[in-house]
Amino acid sequence: MRIGIIGAGQVAQSLGTRLLELGNEVMISSRDLSKPKDKGRWGILPSAAGWKDEHEIKGKKASAGSFRQAAEWGEVLINCTEGTASLQVLRDAGEENLKGKILIDLANPIGRTEGKAHLAFCNTVSLGEMLQAEFKETLVVKTLNTVSAEVMANPRVIRGRHDMLIAGNDYKAKSWVKDVFLRKWLGWKNVIDLGDIRASRSLEMYLMLWLSLWERLQTTNFNIRIVTE
Amino acid sequence: MRIGIIGAGQVAQSLGTRLLELGNEVMISSRDLSKPKDKGRWGILPSAAGWKDEHEIKGKKASAGSFRQAAEWGEVLINCTEGTASLQVLRDAGEENLKGKILIDLANPIGRTEGKAHLAFCNTVSLGEMLQAEFKETLVVKTLNTVSAEVMANPRVIRGRHDMLIAGNDYKAKSWVKDVFLRKWLGWKNVIDLGDIRASRSLEMYLMLWLSLWERLQTTNFNIRIVTE
Repeated sequence: MRIGIIGAGQVAQSLGTRLLELGNEVMISSRDLSKPKDKGRWGILPSAAGWKDEHEIKGKKASAGSFRQAAEWGEVLINCTEGTASLQVLRDAGEENLKGKILIDLANPIGRTEGKAHLAFCNTVSLGEMLQAEFKETLVVKTLNTVSAEVMANPRVIRGRHDMLIAGNDYKAKSWVKDVFLRKWLGWKNVIDLGDIRASRSLEMYLMLWLSLWERLQTTNFNIRIVTE
Repeated sequence: MRIGIIGAGQVAQSLGTRLLELGNEVMISSRDLSKPKDKGRWGILPSAAGWKDEHEIKGKKASAGSFRQAAEWGEVLINCTEGTASLQVLRDAGEENLKGKILIDLANPIGRTEGKAHLAFCNTVSLGEMLQAEFKETLVVKTLNTVSAEVMANPRVIRGRHDMLIAGNDYKAKSWVKDVFLRKWLGWKNVIDLGDIRASRSLEMYLMLWLSLWERLQTTNFNIRIVTE
């Protein structure tokens, strides 16, 4: 399948690489294809073009393009941009290129004040809802934003049962993301459907707890499991 | 030990009953001791005086008083009021009565717009932080706000490992809450310390996910387990 990834950062590259390994064609995208990506405290990642070259050499169907090109080319789209920029980036990608397609949104709108992370917006609104409200004919599915780039692409790095959460308005789109994308491709065995896209609020607000746990555990290789009676 | 519970609602009564069973003296508190407590969709709870009478008959050391009386009398205090009212209620209880004491804060500042729950404040502030900022000589410890009244008091209603989170500035106060109050008394075997009181933001913002999970699971008997490599 042709997967158009909007973004070329750590999450885009990590997930893109995994989707290539699974036999898909993948295009990642950026405003500047030759600019190395800043991974923050983890150093520097290859540019979008560098990522493409690396995988092409290995015979994978990798490509790199503009946001617009990736959105137009992809049969399924994944929003891997920074959450605070996502709405504008997707407008630039062209509403007509998103129409009728599944858009998996795994971004978190992280803001910073005095070096301390918080959400740029939350509580009575969420990025998932904003994207669905703006692109009415796109099937927005919120998921994967609750784990690190590595865990998203390889849930097995964490042993034992742990759960992925999902939200979205379109039942068929959500079923495909749940059964094919998450379960069959990436190996997410336990996926809990939280209902329509409003549950994006819950998923995005969990980020604050994720950040606290990261600080405490000193690793991003963790997730939650919902334990019931 | 003399436990002063600020509040007389579902959480106050459930936790108060459990603390009595453990051999403590417990005072719950309300503005109106004879007013039955509204449990929302769960019906009506006894008034503070009714709760006291019920437990006195069984020979337990139960009492009911004003917020001020409970705060003055208690050696350890628990904030079981509605989060949006907590700051004012604790001011009414008297700063001098809170001084030097541990205040376990398990409230969530739940607001509602058009019947939909959200947080009255969050993200760059939290109730735990507000209480600590206002009552500087009180040892505020945030915990238990991430589970239902029943699970708080009886973590064993959920089978298998699940985790409680805790935050607070004072290490000794946090150790007592962790080792004695949570572990020894209530039976919380796995308690994860998220650091200083700023982590209240994470704990309170988790409420939105809790609400989504409640809607999905149709039970309040659930909790999360942090799963690491």
